[in-house]
Amino acid sequence: MNYKVFLLAVKLSQIGERAIIKKIIDIIEDENIGDDAAYIQYGDEFLLLTTDIVRKKTHLPDIMQPFDIGWFVTAINLSDIAAMGGEPLGVLLSMAIPRELDEKFVIELVQGAKSCTSMYNTSIIGGDTKEHDEITICGTAIGRVKREEILLRKGARPGDILAVTGELGKAAAALLAINEGLSDIDTDALVRPIPRIKEARAIAEHRFANACMDISDGLSSTLYQLREINDVGFLIDRDKLPISKEAIRVGKRLNINPHSIALDYGGDYELLFIMPKNGFKEAKKKVPEVKLTEIGEVIEDKEIKIICHGIERRLEKRGYEHFVS
Amino acid sequence: MNYKVFLLAVKLSQIGERAIIKKIIDIIEDENIGDDAAYIQYGDEFLLLTTDIVRKKTHLPDIMQPFDIGWFVTAINLSDIAAMGGEPLGVLLSMAIPRELDEKFVIELVQGAKSCTSMYNTSIIGGDTKEHDEITICGTAIGRVKREEILLRKGARPGDILAVTGELGKAAAALLAINEGLSDIDTDALVRPIPRIKEARAIAEHRFANACMDISDGLSSTLYQLREINDVGFLIDRDKLPISKEAIRVGKRLNINPHSIALDYGGDYELLFIMPKNGFKEAKKKVPEVKLTEIGEVIEDKEIKIICHGIERRLEKRGYEHFVS
Repeated sequence: MNYKVFLLAVKLSQIGERAIIKKIIDIIEDENIGDDAAYIQYGDEFLLLTTDIVRKKTHLPDIMQPFDIGWFVTAINLSDIAAMGGEPLGVLLSMAIPRELDEKFVIELVQGAKSCTSMYNTSIIGGDTKEHDEITICGTAIGRVKREEILLRKGARPGDILAVTGELGKAAAALLAINEGLSDIDTDALVRPIPRIKEARAIAEHRFANACMDISDGLSSTLYQLREINDVGFLIDRDKLPISKEAIRVGKRLNINPHSIALDYGGDYELLFIMPKNGFKEAKKKVPEVKLTEIGEVIEDKEIKIICHGIERRLEKRGYEHFVS
Repeated sequence: MNYKVFLLAVKLSQIGERAIIKKIIDIIEDENIGDDAAYIQYGDEFLLLTTDIVRKKTHLPDIMQPFDIGWFVTAINLSDIAAMGGEPLGVLLSMAIPRELDEKFVIELVQGAKSCTSMYNTSIIGGDTKEHDEITICGTAIGRVKREEILLRKGARPGDILAVTGELGKAAAALLAINEGLSDIDTDALVRPIPRIKEARAIAEHRFANACMDISDGLSSTLYQLREINDVGFLIDRDKLPISKEAIRVGKRLNINPHSIALDYGGDYELLFIMPKNGFKEAKKKVPEVKLTEIGEVIEDKEIKIICHGIERRLEKRGYEHFVS
């Protein structure tokens, strides 16, 4: 075995999550690892596998009830299966929780998880329970997809259209509202995100897209990651962005640009599809139930730009990244 | 949906891990969930899935180097795949770690994990990295097994032979030695357990066993769990137990009965096979490379007994269980 070893004593906080992941990928020598889920060939299909670990302090705001926590951990893993065009086969739930919690907490959490899996014709198939000082939950989802239907992050070609599901900035608006004590803001997108399984299956089945990624890291951060993988650039049309009314209301009340809420904050479990022009047109016609909004296009120039009232400027990378101060 | 809800505010510390798991199984309405790994039908095969979450404080003694931690989390998940008779397809590694750690820690941990997967012709296929105050690692393994070769916990019949792989009490002896400051004790079984993938595949392929379970909870605790599932009893022959020399040495020095170290402490990632007499005989002949030791038999009477110098007594249940004070 020939490990590529990096023995500099660099603290994680200095290098950031994505740099660490790159080094991990170097060690395990697997080029296929940079997608929303891992995929392994299995007969005519790919098995899809993804895992997400979350903890109380950074991922589970107090507003989340135990039921919501179970839903959330399940949904964010199913969102990764969706981003690959997959159909879920099951979810595992590892719970590390304080012993002072009562039974009701665990039961409601599992009920939330089950409720989410039931919506997508799948189920909780196993898990683990351990003690911990801080609620720490790790979800794993498994899914399947026909080999010719898999959606990867790589595949963008200049001229392709960028299209997103749903609306942008809902989750961030909810989190800002909670943190700033604003009332009357819908928090569903934050506490019970909707994985876009059905939408992605419809697009994948008809092979309408060249690439896909979920935008939970924030749209601008997602674009920067896609640029690196695809060696292309993107031009976003600011006026086409489907900004949620929550982002607009919270933006107004807190004096934050709603476009910034939509682009930079993350937390929306929506999908970004990169589609040939014809694929986008066909999707609008053949799967009208999939609410897709065109937000820009793929360009040859390796810049990420946003156009607003005819003026192009560089779109800054401002998404959230773990370990970066 | 018809959840079976238990809303008594009982603290987890009062009811214990296995009682909680039973309630979880009630909620998710899945009867197949009590095995070492979950299994889902997929063509002519079962996919196997298992997950284990561990944290520094309770599972990762200081003696474990980062490489060992990666190995350990991988090995304990592969052990669950082994217990089902499966062949591993891949491992996911979710790491929640303090930002003060350096890059070297992560790299060595991943190298340990990779090293373990390489031994079993599989690989790390994905994972997640997050920040946490305490090192908390969740591993997930996926495997496959032909439908007719799967090993479950259920299947024991009176007259069947109980047989274990390897030696007993090695991990516990190492932990006791560390805690009590004894030197010269081999700690490999504790820090780098060997999942019995090859052994289990050999037994499963020839269908030599009626049931199987890994004994990491401790042999006595394992027997109590198997009794409940199989509605039978067990008679263990104390003199046949393959007590490790480490358990004998540590037992002597700390004045603890080595049989108790082997039976009650847990941490050995060995497998307990329940085999028809003929299956055991055939295994000895046809797969002599699998080191199997007969330790007792399945009895109709629902007792768990141990025989020693001709005297039978009840074997107490003393394994470790989370949340129980």
